Amino acid sequence: MMTIDPPAALAAELPHTIAGLPLAAWTRAIRPSTIQEMLGLMGRPGIISFALGLPAPELFPVDEYAKAADRVLFSDVDALQYRPAPLALKEHVARLMADRGVTVRPEQVFLTTAAQQALSLLTRILLPEGGSIICDELVYMGFQQVVEPYAPRMLTVGNSLEHGMDVDAVQAHLEAGERPAFLYCVTDGHNPLGCSVSPANRRRLVALAREHRIPIVEDDAYGLLHFGNPEPPLRALDDEWVLYVGSFSKVMAPGFRVGWIIAPEPLIPVLGCAKDGADLDSGTFSQRLVSKYLDSGHFPRHLATIRASYQRRRDVMIESIREHFPAGTRWSTPRNGALVWAELPARFDTSALLRPALEAGVAYVPGAAFAVPGSSAGRNCMRLNFSFPSQEDIREGIARLGKVVRDAD
Amino acid sequence: MMTIDPPAALAAELPHTIAGLPLAAWTRAIRPSTIQEMLGLMGRPGIISFALGLPAPELFPVDEYAKAADRVLFSDVDALQYRPAPLALKEHVARLMADRGVTVRPEQVFLTTAAQQALSLLTRILLPEGGSIICDELVYMGFQQVVEPYAPRMLTVGNSLEHGMDVDAVQAHLEAGERPAFLYCVTDGHNPLGCSVSPANRRRLVALAREHRIPIVEDDAYGLLHFGNPEPPLRALDDEWVLYVGSFSKVMAPGFRVGWIIAPEPLIPVLGCAKDGADLDSGTFSQRLVSKYLDSGHFPRHLATIRASYQRRRDVMIESIREHFPAGTRWSTPRNGALVWAELPARFDTSALLRPALEAGVAYVPGAAFAVPGSSAGRNCMRLNFSFPSQEDIREGIARLGKVVRDAD
Repeated sequence: MMTIDPPAALAAELPHTIAGLPLAAWTRAIRPSTIQEMLGLMGRPGIISFALGLPAPELFPVDEYAKAADRVLFSDVDALQYRPAPLALKEHVARLMADRGVTVRPEQVFLTTAAQQALSLLTRILLPEGGSIICDELVYMGFQQVVEPYAPRMLTVGNSLEHGMDVDAVQAHLEAGERPAFLYCVTDGHNPLGCSVSPANRRRLVALAREHRIPIVEDDAYGLLHFGNPEPPLRALDDEWVLYVGSFSKVMAPGFRVGWIIAPEPLIPVLGCAKDGADLDSGTFSQRLVSKYLDSGHFPRHLATIRASYQRRRDVMIESIREHFPAGTRWSTPRNGALVWAELPARFDTSALLRPALEAGVAYVPGAAFAVPGSSAGRNCMRLNFSFPSQEDIREGIARLGKVVRDAD
Repeated sequence: MMTIDPPAALAAELPHTIAGLPLAAWTRAIRPSTIQEMLGLMGRPGIISFALGLPAPELFPVDEYAKAADRVLFSDVDALQYRPAPLALKEHVARLMADRGVTVRPEQVFLTTAAQQALSLLTRILLPEGGSIICDELVYMGFQQVVEPYAPRMLTVGNSLEHGMDVDAVQAHLEAGERPAFLYCVTDGHNPLGCSVSPANRRRLVALAREHRIPIVEDDAYGLLHFGNPEPPLRALDDEWVLYVGSFSKVMAPGFRVGWIIAPEPLIPVLGCAKDGADLDSGTFSQRLVSKYLDSGHFPRHLATIRASYQRRRDVMIESIREHFPAGTRWSTPRNGALVWAELPARFDTSALLRPALEAGVAYVPGAAFAVPGSSAGRNCMRLNFSFPSQEDIREGIARLGKVVRDAD
């Protein structure tokens, strides 16, 4: 008999005083570490997990990384030391950005502890206490954890699975006189929705940012992980109001914790100061390892491999959903990334379904987990990751999940 | 002819709007990235640098690290993935803490992106907006960068080079009714002062923390780097009110960015949530590499090597100061760490001496750089690092510096 506490328990409030220590006010509303909770759920034997956005570990080019690690340790005297972030890696990033249709100079690249720190630092420098932001009503949980301490007013907008962010709603906020500190946008491979912003909406978003002088924080963590015919990100349309976030986590390895911000050059030292306060703006062994790996020329082949493999897994997942989920279910067909959003008919509550799903040996994240505070969006939805499980596990897991859903009907 | 801008320029205020972007209020008082500025100064050819607290790169056990990297990549499937922080490393930390005279369970260990992130997360969970803290009047710059955004009232205390923190001053603040969010204390190998808190003062500090229910954030980044007969840190005297910060940066390599907090167990998930917001509370490749290196059993030998080598460098530095600096100069004789504090007679201004020193080919950090805002402490002092330069460079650099000082008299 399994006893599993579903992540609904995540929302439990901790007391203001823990272990006799008085804690700062914002921690009153703190949630226990979401990722730890999720990792705990996934670790249970026999569970097929669609819960986290993990890369497929069997596709990591371990030999190539080992060679890069050796090259760094035996050839780069700065690799272990306090030294500036490596210019060579900024140059690599600039070249990769060209592949995304974006022109940048290495001087506009700021290296971070992956995309999460990039969002944290940008929020730190842009968002005043008590300020407001525009973001999706269903939004990446890690983003909510970044902004929570500042208690901003969240000016939310909806999304369509076909066209992404509701730009009419953005325009309505701005024309109502709102002055948000920034707009947060996952242009491609939206987390959790798996959607992309349409080309027309990209142009409109950038025009609104310029007109109203509102910076856009563009989270492109899944940008390089596309399945053909990618659209250039917002940063390709504007180099002044779009602050771009990229990451090697999804295309190389999360464990390296290397990502970047593209920002106007005068902002780079400001980010440096904010990073000094967070964890020192010092080059890391991982940054240099990633840079040496990119030197080797292997990355384009690896990228081709994971793009092809994940595309097949996506297709298997969507076929399986079509086969096993009840009539009336809608889903996204992601052009980027690793996440499918499945919207069941309105009578279903996916938070309530999580326990029977775990008991049936399959994990996902209930849609409600992504709703901003006070919103009831996503109640009948689930986020399903297709990059981690094999095609076989996807077929089996979605079949199990379909049965759980139909049994609850 | 060299043109060098000394770090006095660091204090220059940036405008509230940069590159057309409105920035959050706290960035108005931002300083450009201090570490980047210092690294820039040090990189100039021919300069002997006593400026940063860098480990000696020639003592890095590179072969052992390379073996550890290989072992991680080829044996640990979690090393590259999003996974919980490795328990094996927490167990290693618990064993190392026993070496410091501290008893902890792995469950009380929270892994961080080195000591700087540890300070950042503890401040985040303890310090409310507009709160106050007790700290040294001359205090680690990185700590100032951590707390700056919260604009706390700094309740400062002095230090003696012999006995460390002025505990009478701490007591006076508390008895005057102050309720600081925490007290910040570098118990051993103080940065910048190179001093240690005396055993009697350790007991008094902990008693005050208990009596007034004020947490102590104990920064022990240099604790393992001692030169014989170490005193146990404050955490050995109290496991409830002392939140302990440790790091592998000084004893293994800064580039790995691995450190830890020891905290009461109920605080661990709170720290996890704060780290999620900062850069995700996920195990890193570096954490697993450090853990594998510790598995190898080589670390005690490495620690013995660097302790002996740094102790010799310290002794050469102090002999050289005695020989070359003017009469009336006082200095610390550090029992831990990598920093000597030299206090010249009051007529000297070490900020003004920095430019001629750089022109003479020697770098240090002027004492004023460590003074909290509004304090003029440290004006006639300099912080001198002895772990990075060779014994020969220490002799030559201190001779150059002594000449610069005497020439200015």
